[in-house]
Parts: sequence; C-alpha cells; structure tokens
Amino acid sequence: MRLKHVKGAEEKIKSAEIVIKNPEQHRGNYMNLFQKKSPLHIEIGMGKGHFIIEKAKRNPNINFIGIEKFDSVIVRAIEKAEELKLPNLRFIRMDATEIQTIFDHEIDLIYLNFSDPWPKNRHENRRLSSPIFLKRYESLFQNDIIIEMKTDNRHLFEYSIISFNELKYHIEEISLNLHEENLEDNIETEYEQKFSLKGFPIYKIRVRKQI
Amino acid sequence: MRLKHVKGAEEKIKSAEIVIKNPEQHRGNYMNLFQKKSPLHIEIGMGKGHFIIEKAKRNPNINFIGIEKFDSVIVRAIEKAEELKLPNLRFIRMDATEIQTIFDHEIDLIYLNFSDPWPKNRHENRRLSSPIFLKRYESLFQNDIIIEMKTDNRHLFEYSIISFNELKYHIEEISLNLHEENLEDNIETEYEQKFSLKGFPIYKIRVRKQI
Repeated sequence: MRLKHVKGAEEKIKSAEIVIKNPEQHRGNYMNLFQKKSPLHIEIGMGKGHFIIEKAKRNPNINFIGIEKFDSVIVRAIEKAEELKLPNLRFIRMDATEIQTIFDHEIDLIYLNFSDPWPKNRHENRRLSSPIFLKRYESLFQNDIIIEMKTDNRHLFEYSIISFNELKYHIEEISLNLHEENLEDNIETEYEQKFSLKGFPIYKIRVRKQI
Repeated sequence: MRLKHVKGAEEKIKSAEIVIKNPEQHRGNYMNLFQKKSPLHIEIGMGKGHFIIEKAKRNPNINFIGIEKFDSVIVRAIEKAEELKLPNLRFIRMDATEIQTIFDHEIDLIYLNFSDPWPKNRHENRRLSSPIFLKRYESLFQNDIIIEMKTDNRHLFEYSIISFNELKYHIEEISLNLHEENLEDNIETEYEQKFSLKGFPIYKIRVRKQI
C-alpha cells in the first residue's frame, strides 16, 4: 500500500475512543471491553476498515477488533467507524509480529484480507500466512483455530495453501474465483472491489485446526 | 469427452503389441514387461496419449503405462505410439475403478491429466481425486504415493485440494496458473493446448504421502 502522510493522524488515534490503548494490558480480558459476551473475531491488516466495519454492522452478536499498523490508514477506519458507534467494534494500532503478547486464548477467528504478499523469498517470514505467523496465532484462540483469507495474489495464495497444509490445517472451504460464486455473504474490501473490477480472480480459503 | 465410434477399434486393441492383455495376470510383476528395471509411472485416463508418449520419449529411464477405458480413444494413442516403438511405454485398456486388482506395490507416480470433473455431487465417487479413489491407489505404490494432477476445471481442482488435504497428503507443488510459470518441463496434453489458448488458467498440483 502506498502510504500518505496524514496530518494529525497520531493525535486522532490517541484520542479516538474506538481505539484500544495499551492493548497488552487487556490480554486475556478483551471480553470486558465489549457490552456483550460474544465470540471475538479479529482482522489483521484491516486497512481503511471497510470489511470489518461492515462485518460488525451485519453481525451484532460477534465482537470485532481490527488491527492495523499504519497511522495514515487506521485513521481512515476511525473516521468511518466513529459515526456508526458500533458497540461490537474496536481497533488496535500495532504491528502483528507481537500479536501473541496482546491476546491470550480469547479469539475465535482471524481474517486476513489482501495481506502484503512479500514476494521476495527472504521476506517469507513477514507473510501473515507463513508457518512462523501461524505458530504465533496458536495461543490466541480459545477453541479451534479458524482463519479466513482472501487475496488476489496468486503466489501468496499458492504459498498459503502449502503453508496451511504443512501445518496440518483442515481446509474447510476454498475458492479460486470467489466472484463467480454465490456472493450473498461476501463483504468486499476496498482492494477487492478494485481488483475484481479489473477481472482478476479473487482467491479465498477457510481453514481450521483443533488445539 | 465426446466419443466417436471408430471402426475396427476393438480388433486394433486386441492385436496391438503395445497393449497389455489380461493385465491382472501381471499384478506385482509389471517390471518384467519392460527391458529396463526402472521406476514405473502411470497415467490414468491418458486419452489420445500425447502426454504419456512425450513423457516416455523424454524419459528413457522411467517405464510408463497409459490407462484408458474408451476403445475409440486408446486406438488413437496406439496409432501414435506404434511408429515410435518406445521400449518404456505400454498401454492398458480398462476402467480405473478396478485399478487395485491390476497393480500391487509396484508403481511410483500417478498422473491425472484433465480428468472428467463429474460435476454432480452424486457422481463425486467417480472423480479420480476423490477420497474413494485415493484409497484405491494406496496399495499400488511401492514407496511414497506421488500424484501429479493438471486440470482446467476450477471446481474439480478446489475439490481435489480439499480431498488431498483431508487424506493428509503433503502438497509439494501447486500452481493456479501453470502457463504463467517457467514451462520448460511441462508437456501439454491435447486438452491443455486447447484450453490454455482460450486464456483459461491451467491448475497443477503435486502431492506426496508416505506409506
């Protein structure tokens, strides 16, 4: 993603109620930050938040946390979400590398949407579906590990299939051209709209692993 | 595949030297049918044989058996192969459903190229990558089970990924657009040439399982 400097972004993030400050202090107790005791779904790399905001609107009985590391991007998500005042939606500004220090056996599903493909081999460990990341996710979940991933990047998707298979994830669903399926339940991200209009296939996979 | 009646096909198959008659009599001893003691690769559903004939030409140190159930199709493969007189290539006319009565711990690799997708759910068990077929293949192999599959059929490929994953196959290679890769080693089947010229992606997977 090309990043623009957004004036006042840092201040905005600090003052926004929707953003969870000092997230490591809530480790194991995220449930308490929400009105309802519901399953907790997180999106790592939510970008400008379109997907997770829409998910939260449509699913009042699930709590959502969107994670994004870039100030200039998360600030757009904050702007969109603040008007809506959804009780089941919060954000965290952080780098996912440290995610196991933030959550502890309390989440139910991870969304990975159009993650950075990090195409160079030497950057493999930065891919959010690399074995090293999959291992980091293990202690986050309270029950089965469930991951839903969408991407337009063929090489990242091929890599991810191999990675999930390698770590003995059970592939529950896979689509090699999501927009040719029945799309009632699909919430398009900003990227997805752009790429699918160009006629590129969108890939999706849903995997599960018992812990 | 649309089948034409080919006059004299049955006679041709009966008299062709390249065709193995009464294959169940060679069970466990296919090695003896070839000049060299080499690994044995089979293609199930070889159609008109372009792929396996080319493989046999390029790989004199591997023995190949092409399997096809339709008289009118295998007869074309016989015509092509007879001129070449390759010592490492034989054919069997049979339905793959009974394959475990034909081979016994003696093959090293199965090729499945552009297999019939059998799109209806009630025909799932006819798909050559269904769990029921994968189980049939198990007693065929002398070492690890290795399967290489190519198809242009998206739903069959999605189904096959799930099927291999379900039966704990290790995915060694996967391509969601084979013709965008470096293609030096790829031998195109008749179908593949046709479909890839139309711009459809060709999918490929190579899986392995220890026995």
